[in-house]
Amino acid sequence: MSIRIGIVGYGNIGRGVEAAISYNPDTELAGIFTRRAPEELKSATSAPVYHIDQAKDMTSEIDVMILCGGSATDLPKQSPEFVKLFNIVDSFDTHAKIPEHFSAVDAAAKSSGHIAIISAGWDPGMFSLNRLLGNVILTDGADYTFWGKGISQGHSDAIRRIEGVLDAKQYTIPIPSALEQVRSGSAPKLTTREKHTRECFVVAAPGADKARIEHEIKTMENYFADYDTTVHFISQEELDRDHSAMPHGGFVIRSGKTGLAHEHNATIEYSLKLDSNPEFTSCILVACARAAARMYSEGLTGCKTLFDVPPAYLSSLSGEELRRTML
Amino acid sequence: MSIRIGIVGYGNIGRGVEAAISYNPDTELAGIFTRRAPEELKSATSAPVYHIDQAKDMTSEIDVMILCGGSATDLPKQSPEFVKLFNIVDSFDTHAKIPEHFSAVDAAAKSSGHIAIISAGWDPGMFSLNRLLGNVILTDGADYTFWGKGISQGHSDAIRRIEGVLDAKQYTIPIPSALEQVRSGSAPKLTTREKHTRECFVVAAPGADKARIEHEIKTMENYFADYDTTVHFISQEELDRDHSAMPHGGFVIRSGKTGLAHEHNATIEYSLKLDSNPEFTSCILVACARAAARMYSEGLTGCKTLFDVPPAYLSSLSGEELRRTML
Repeated sequence: MSIRIGIVGYGNIGRGVEAAISYNPDTELAGIFTRRAPEELKSATSAPVYHIDQAKDMTSEIDVMILCGGSATDLPKQSPEFVKLFNIVDSFDTHAKIPEHFSAVDAAAKSSGHIAIISAGWDPGMFSLNRLLGNVILTDGADYTFWGKGISQGHSDAIRRIEGVLDAKQYTIPIPSALEQVRSGSAPKLTTREKHTRECFVVAAPGADKARIEHEIKTMENYFADYDTTVHFISQEELDRDHSAMPHGGFVIRSGKTGLAHEHNATIEYSLKLDSNPEFTSCILVACARAAARMYSEGLTGCKTLFDVPPAYLSSLSGEELRRTML
Repeated sequence: MSIRIGIVGYGNIGRGVEAAISYNPDTELAGIFTRRAPEELKSATSAPVYHIDQAKDMTSEIDVMILCGGSATDLPKQSPEFVKLFNIVDSFDTHAKIPEHFSAVDAAAKSSGHIAIISAGWDPGMFSLNRLLGNVILTDGADYTFWGKGISQGHSDAIRRIEGVLDAKQYTIPIPSALEQVRSGSAPKLTTREKHTRECFVVAAPGADKARIEHEIKTMENYFADYDTTVHFISQEELDRDHSAMPHGGFVIRSGKTGLAHEHNATIEYSLKLDSNPEFTSCILVACARAAARMYSEGLTGCKTLFDVPPAYLSSLSGEELRRTML
């Protein structure tokens, strides 16, 4: 019997989950839930669309709800609410607020007897898993996470809020020489500025003061002030033509020592190169939905992360098949 | 209370485990067990040394036995035997025989109520985990494992068995252009010869027929016949000076598609670069010993692999600390 998945929110991640379900024959899309008028939303696979308020009456038709809203306002509210009625998976990605989100979801999941897997994606998610694995293997070592080259949604949004900006896309770019230093095993101490550069493509309103916009971007605290930032002003047409894809990726590197005298170097590197950031995240969400369904079927409850999931639970293959074909 | 670890077998892996224990303050080395006369073995950390037959009387002093023997003859016998009395971890690495080894260890572990984690290392082990994770995320894709540059013990041994060979070391080397093709996302079909080359450093006996030795190496079925192989004859002094380290490493790459029309590429790459192959393997064994102790304390029994271990169990940090610092 296939795993019946519901999608809450039909943005980039929601559409990505819809696609990912089509890759996994042991899953099926039971419905898409939206805050919009359902009749106005046409899904890419003609899946049934419901108003989000209808979800509560469909608990017997859905095994796992994948919550595809944003981490700023949607998930902090939706995840604890939905887990009262469903097993859920989300990609909550505000790192600093994960402990708080975990607590809220865990309490609700335990009281209702459901499973939640939160912060499932690539960072947090697969990158986190690789940070953990790197740390447990090379206990005397240093961690490095680089992001990009890719579009940062948060930084693009921050530029768009500047007066006189009509549209913008921001690329985060790892600095190749920093990557090389880390790979060499020299365990360098790198400042924020030494790890990444930021490149911005901005559409300014007619007559806007470009010098002021550029200055506001480059000096923006928390977003750009600590980086070497380049700003290009282009037309909306150019932005749409050249910068509408959503590539991303990055590197997690653990560099450390082995041997009784800490005399040998070892380097572990995990990297991603993605044409579509949300589609890749969605593939992880669907694998986690499979794990959530299995954990629930075994009577487990509460909030989990990829740290708590036996990797085999992410796969549709049996333990025997996995050992024979992949071990 | 720290996890009391016993080491069975004091070769490269046994010494590596001894070193790895010194990196992990929540573990301690309870004893080294050897088939030799214990008084003849002096451990690098002055740990107590016992004869292997004494182990059966020390079940209350050891939480996890790490079996550091070879996969050809030691582990198939020792793992099922030791798990009758102890939780065990081994690095059994004969891929084709893993299902058989798993069955034997699982039966013994279940009947005695212990936990075994087998095939813990980097391949099988971390590479296997990355094959699994790559497959569950990118279901429409292709897997590539490259090994090296590093010393292959099995291939070095095979050369040493040739008449007229006094000593030898063999390096397995991934072919850079093959790696690049795979990384490009073109999902190439690669033959054995197209993925790796083999380089051999051979010490010939005085007066031995080097042309015959080279021919025997290059045409050896299963080991060299399917590869482009280079043979260098050098002196024992040169071999000892330049080729006595045990570096290794490799790459697991999953390249696949995302998107409803399978229109986007994604590439996941995991790689290792190790000055000491056995020391790195040993670091993984010790992390698995921690996981085995925890699973045992929770009442679990039977044979496990890294596919079955929740990653957090490999760490000494609490779930809360892990989420706060690594997620």
